Amino acid sequence: MSKKYYLMSPGPTSVPPEVSLAEAKPILHHRTKVFEEMLGQVNEDLKYLFQTKNDVFTYASSGTGAMESAVANLLCAGDTALVVRGGKFGERWGNICKAYGVNFIPLDIEWGYAVSPDEIEAKLKENPNIKVVFTTLCETSTATLMPIKEIGAVVAKTNACLVVDAVSGLGVDEFRMDEWNVDVAAVGSQKGLMIPPGLAFAAVSPKALEMSKTSTLPKFYFSFAAYKKGLESGEPPYTPPVSLIYALQQALDMIKQETIEKVWQRHRLLAQATRAGITALGLRLLSKSPANGLTAAFGPGEDDGGVIVKKYSQLGITVAGGQDALKGKIFRIAHMGYAEMFDVIMSISALEMILMDMGYKFELGAGMKAAEEVLKKL
Amino acid sequence: MSKKYYLMSPGPTSVPPEVSLAEAKPILHHRTKVFEEMLGQVNEDLKYLFQTKNDVFTYASSGTGAMESAVANLLCAGDTALVVRGGKFGERWGNICKAYGVNFIPLDIEWGYAVSPDEIEAKLKENPNIKVVFTTLCETSTATLMPIKEIGAVVAKTNACLVVDAVSGLGVDEFRMDEWNVDVAAVGSQKGLMIPPGLAFAAVSPKALEMSKTSTLPKFYFSFAAYKKGLESGEPPYTPPVSLIYALQQALDMIKQETIEKVWQRHRLLAQATRAGITALGLRLLSKSPANGLTAAFGPGEDDGGVIVKKYSQLGITVAGGQDALKGKIFRIAHMGYAEMFDVIMSISALEMILMDMGYKFELGAGMKAAEEVLKKL
Repeated sequence: MSKKYYLMSPGPTSVPPEVSLAEAKPILHHRTKVFEEMLGQVNEDLKYLFQTKNDVFTYASSGTGAMESAVANLLCAGDTALVVRGGKFGERWGNICKAYGVNFIPLDIEWGYAVSPDEIEAKLKENPNIKVVFTTLCETSTATLMPIKEIGAVVAKTNACLVVDAVSGLGVDEFRMDEWNVDVAAVGSQKGLMIPPGLAFAAVSPKALEMSKTSTLPKFYFSFAAYKKGLESGEPPYTPPVSLIYALQQALDMIKQETIEKVWQRHRLLAQATRAGITALGLRLLSKSPANGLTAAFGPGEDDGGVIVKKYSQLGITVAGGQDALKGKIFRIAHMGYAEMFDVIMSISALEMILMDMGYKFELGAGMKAAEEVLKKL
Repeated sequence: MSKKYYLMSPGPTSVPPEVSLAEAKPILHHRTKVFEEMLGQVNEDLKYLFQTKNDVFTYASSGTGAMESAVANLLCAGDTALVVRGGKFGERWGNICKAYGVNFIPLDIEWGYAVSPDEIEAKLKENPNIKVVFTTLCETSTATLMPIKEIGAVVAKTNACLVVDAVSGLGVDEFRMDEWNVDVAAVGSQKGLMIPPGLAFAAVSPKALEMSKTSTLPKFYFSFAAYKKGLESGEPPYTPPVSLIYALQQALDMIKQETIEKVWQRHRLLAQATRAGITALGLRLLSKSPANGLTAAFGPGEDDGGVIVKKYSQLGITVAGGQDALKGKIFRIAHMGYAEMFDVIMSISALEMILMDMGYKFELGAGMKAAEEVLKKL
């Protein structure tokens, strides 16, 4: 393959060369002073990323491991939880609850729509036995942003904990764990964080830690107590993935240097430009509450999404298709993590070429022009 | 630090530069054909490493995650298991069982000794309700090798499954999963496999897969069924750690090129040379059944182990100390994975300098001479 390869999928995302090279550094033992000091700094920087004073636990796992840790550490078999389901990842909360024998009340949202905080409030009033509300920051399957701040204000008035899958939202969409009253935020490394897959994080509030003390579900590898002790002693409970921690350190340095507010602003504009480009070409967006890390859209015809994904791939660009009911119908372009203005230009340019190829009538260049108008604000 | 740094601890171990560089390659999406083909080859090569026809599940986790997966997938709360405890990692099996409400019968062995297969046979006869026997290939805390082949012959005659923690033994000590009737082998990546920590493996026999069908313990991230489906479809259930998979591919290539028999033979001689060097200096080894991946020994005085570890560190070399009752008493030198003859020479040379420094009387050079005599067979 002599073609350049472009990774524009919503995870894994492409990794800056500085991060890749950091990963290739010689392995230090995790119980050496040098490594422990580095890890101490990384733990502080993670708090900045989550905008929290809470502990952030770092697991060797995918984001799903961090999600499971929230269920296994907070709840008991037979407990009741509220699960917001507006896509694949909301559904995953339900599947994990089911695997652990947790009863869950589904709050089903049409895919592409955000949940209403009022509905959550109503469910909590109807069911005062709800111990945990599970939702997502960015529902990746539909590119939809949920109003976490407003949900947090509702849940904080109750004894329930708010658990947020922020896997594809952290370091992308505005997120303020403490101000917004989030009790557990579960995150993976291969999205906004700009590092390869293999690390996951759970940031945990005092309210959640208190609830975890009464949890009787089994856990060992993902035990909050083990990681809490690890943070206090400076010795992680299990061998940490040293090379990915190097990558994390480098990526967090880059985020600190840019500042988290500017990271959010950059993603806001990249998303806005992508949406402007796509709609200027006459295509329709999926989400009514679009997230900033990726954009989901329909092709010209009802079933053109899959064709577009395939044609992107022929140009050397990996974007994502739709899942379940949306399979073959939509395409999803990420602009997440190590992404900047010309990544958007490229994805819109490729889309124009693809649409030309499909015989779709539109004004050539209109998408790029619309995107440029937004991007020049960056 | 202008000093060279040498990692001679039993995990993480040092990584070949080819492997580090492989890890730094650009991230491919895991659902691309290129990546799926690579993963298919990696899965085949893993079977060679385990000497098995069974499925090998690859997790993003530490070795402990793979151990937990065996407990959570095979057993039900209230089931009975036999746990061989001859060190920290044998104890870990008991701790995981406890976390999952599995009753376990401990078979306690003096640290540094191997378990007797006859004792396991007797326990199985006394307690026909034992569903799983948990043990270790190499008990890292004491550098002791367990007779897995003989244990396998005993357990295979019963309905019980044999689950082996081979974390620091695979790719080091002879291990033939199928011939030896092992039902689950749990392994980590940062030992004999020569790659950074962050990947773990569970190889699972048909007998174990059958038992897993009746297991009612909760599992999601570590569900055998999910990974089995992933192998069948070529699509891993959760985003795999792409960069560590690149590293794995490179390391497996190197092992295939050397051949597994020669890998075992190399470790056998490195271990023999290390033991010869240490005993030639008048020091005493801990293990009565020494493993080939690391060597544990006492210092000249009862409490010199900790001092020796510290002095190694001042020379830029990380070795390990003792744990629990052996804390401060022993030192453990690894010769595991990316290790060859001059690593042994260095560790024995450093030991001689350390002993000189401690005022211990011995013939300078005697350790290196004894090691060389063994190493020239390599």
